[in-house]
Formats: sequence, C-alpha cells, structure tokens
Amino acid sequence: MNYLEALSRRYSVKKFNKEIIPQETLHNILESGKLSASSLGLQPYKILIVESEEMKQKLIPAFYNPSQISTCSHLIVIISKKTIDESYIRGYFNHISEVRDIPLENLDLFKKSINQHIVQKSQDEIFNWAEKQSYIVLANLMYAAAIENIDTCPMEGFREDMIEKILGINPETEKVTVTLAIGYRSEEDAFQYMKKVRKPNEKLFKFI
Amino acid sequence: MNYLEALSRRYSVKKFNKEIIPQETLHNILESGKLSASSLGLQPYKILIVESEEMKQKLIPAFYNPSQISTCSHLIVIISKKTIDESYIRGYFNHISEVRDIPLENLDLFKKSINQHIVQKSQDEIFNWAEKQSYIVLANLMYAAAIENIDTCPMEGFREDMIEKILGINPETEKVTVTLAIGYRSEEDAFQYMKKVRKPNEKLFKFI
Repeated sequence: MNYLEALSRRYSVKKFNKEIIPQETLHNILESGKLSASSLGLQPYKILIVESEEMKQKLIPAFYNPSQISTCSHLIVIISKKTIDESYIRGYFNHISEVRDIPLENLDLFKKSINQHIVQKSQDEIFNWAEKQSYIVLANLMYAAAIENIDTCPMEGFREDMIEKILGINPETEKVTVTLAIGYRSEEDAFQYMKKVRKPNEKLFKFI
Repeated sequence: MNYLEALSRRYSVKKFNKEIIPQETLHNILESGKLSASSLGLQPYKILIVESEEMKQKLIPAFYNPSQISTCSHLIVIISKKTIDESYIRGYFNHISEVRDIPLENLDLFKKSINQHIVQKSQDEIFNWAEKQSYIVLANLMYAAAIENIDTCPMEGFREDMIEKILGINPETEKVTVTLAIGYRSEEDAFQYMKKVRKPNEKLFKFI
C-alpha cells in the first residue's frame, strides 16, 4: 500500500473493535511522533500513552464522544508546554552539545537567537506556538498509523480539567492540546463505508 | 526506504540546490496535504504553491532566512481562515450531500452540531483552531515529501504583512500561518551531516 492509498483509507474512526496493537507497531508509530519537526527543535510537548484499561475507563467521562475511548487499543494524549523557561533551553543545549559532540560555547549564537525568539513572545503566544508544534506530532502519529494499517481518531472535544486531574498534569505549566485514539476500526462503524469529502482542488490549491 | 528511515533522513534544509521537483511528485505531495484530517472536516485553509521564479524573488525580503526561498523548487504557503461563516458551512454541507449522495436534510443534525461548535468560539479561538488544522497539512506535506525523498524546510519566521500584500491575501478573512520550502538539499548545506537531536524517550513519552 503506498502512502496515498493509506491516507485515503484513513478516516476518523467512531468505534474501534477493542483489539490491541502489537508493541512493535505502536513503537514505530511513536517513533514517527518523536521524529516530528518542531520549531527551533524545541519539542515543546510530551506524549502520554494510556494503555491501562482502568485508566481508559476513568477517562471516558472526560470525552464528548466516549465510544472511541472505550473501544480503542491505546489513547494518546499530547500535552503542550505553556512556558519555555531558561532551564528548559539550557537542557536543550546541553543535549545538542552531547549528541553532536560540539562544545557548548559553539552553540552560543543559536542559543542567543532562541532566547530572543522566546523572550519576545507573550505567554499566550508561546502556548499557541507550542500547540501548533503538537499538531505536527498528531499528524505524524496519524500518518505512520495509516501506513501501518492502524486506525485512528483525533479528538479535540474533551474536558481538559478532567483529563489533567486524572492524568496528574500540572495546569500551571502544561495543557492537554489534543488526543488520538488508535486501534482497529469496528466493522460496525458506518463511517468507513462513506466517500471521503475533500474540497475540490480549485478551492484548496492555488498555483502562483 | 521505510517511513522511519525517511523521517530520520529529513531535516530542515537551509540551502537547496535549485533543482525543480517533477510535477508528478509535487502532485503526490500536495495530494497528501489534501488528504489531511481536519476538525469536523472543515479544512479551514488554502494551500498556495509558489512556482514562478519571479514571485519567489519578490517574496525573499519577507523571510528572515532568505536562502531557502532563493534556492527551493517550490514555496508552499498555508493560509488559515480567520472566520467560518454560515455560507462556508452551507457550502461544506452542499458538498457532502453531493459527494455522498445524501439528501441535505439528513445532515441537519451534524450541521447543527457544527454550527453550535463554531458559534460558541470567539474569533481568536476560531483562528487558533484553524491554524492548528493547518499544521496537520504542514506535517502531511513534509511526511509525503520525506517518503518521496524530497527535502523541505518549514518556516514560521516571516513578515506576514509583506507576504499577504505580495500574494494578494485579504487579511480581514485569511492569514498566512506557515510556509514550507521544498526541493533538493544542497551538498553544501552542513546541517544534513549533523546528528538528529530528539528528547530521549523517557523525557518525551510516558506510558500510563
């Protein structure tokens, strides 16, 4: 199956069949999320993978459409950082220095430009920017899943406060941005049999 | 090349070699953008593809890092909608009705829920939501390009007002969200030889 066939087969599953995804496949999908591009390489997010049945059950009331949560194999919750502080940036640069075997002082110019970039943004702007980076992760997870023949449903309709409480997320520094249920479509899910609706090319694309 | 190898090979290119991407490959990459998931299926964006050399030249001063613009094959500009009005939603439902051959009145419940969803959001919220959907497109374009062995550089550092003026975008209703230069990496671009830096698994993932 090539990637366009995989994307054409993809749809937002309303009901999964409760089968569990093999560990290796899950690992590959997560690796695809890890390899996501992010602005300045800062990866201002975390990826929580809810695999315990008990925890999925607890989360059901937090979702406006609970059927995905009660039938999926895993629920992925993407958390965005609300702030980027000095120690986070320092940690990032220590890590670059280590991985690339470059003395820290050689990265000073890059570090300065990142600090400038971050400092000039308001907290709201930082958070919006972090959320957008999280959506690249979301898309990368869905894309890899489609190629692996694994079904998904991205979900924005939930009560953040409930999820944060259940998963122990500190709302001062982090926020649930988006969630992704993954698993295998149930044969009963009628949406898989419907034609995909996309804007016609002339409304979506413009060549200049 | 499998998809994880393709993503590992990907990096944000600083300098392309000016070679032009074959039409069919470009078409496949754009199709991947078209097949992106979007919240409620609303696709609140447009995808502009700058292919004219003259237009690329004009856009150079709008970017903080001009070398990608002057050396890429195509520059893709993703525009997000600032508002979702009744006529847009009506057009969407007419289109669903047509593609799926369903009478409009059978879609009333879905239409009502979308209207409710949209109406309760402020204009800022609509726009943030639309921008996040645009990042799924960005990611899908990068992903397909990686699989096609085409290089990319996503860019957020530009003067929106200049791009909007040059490309004739109406800032009342639309906004440049993010841009993507695509082409082939130049051998001179030192960044391709550096190790990829990603948070270690224990800092990125948490299994619950």
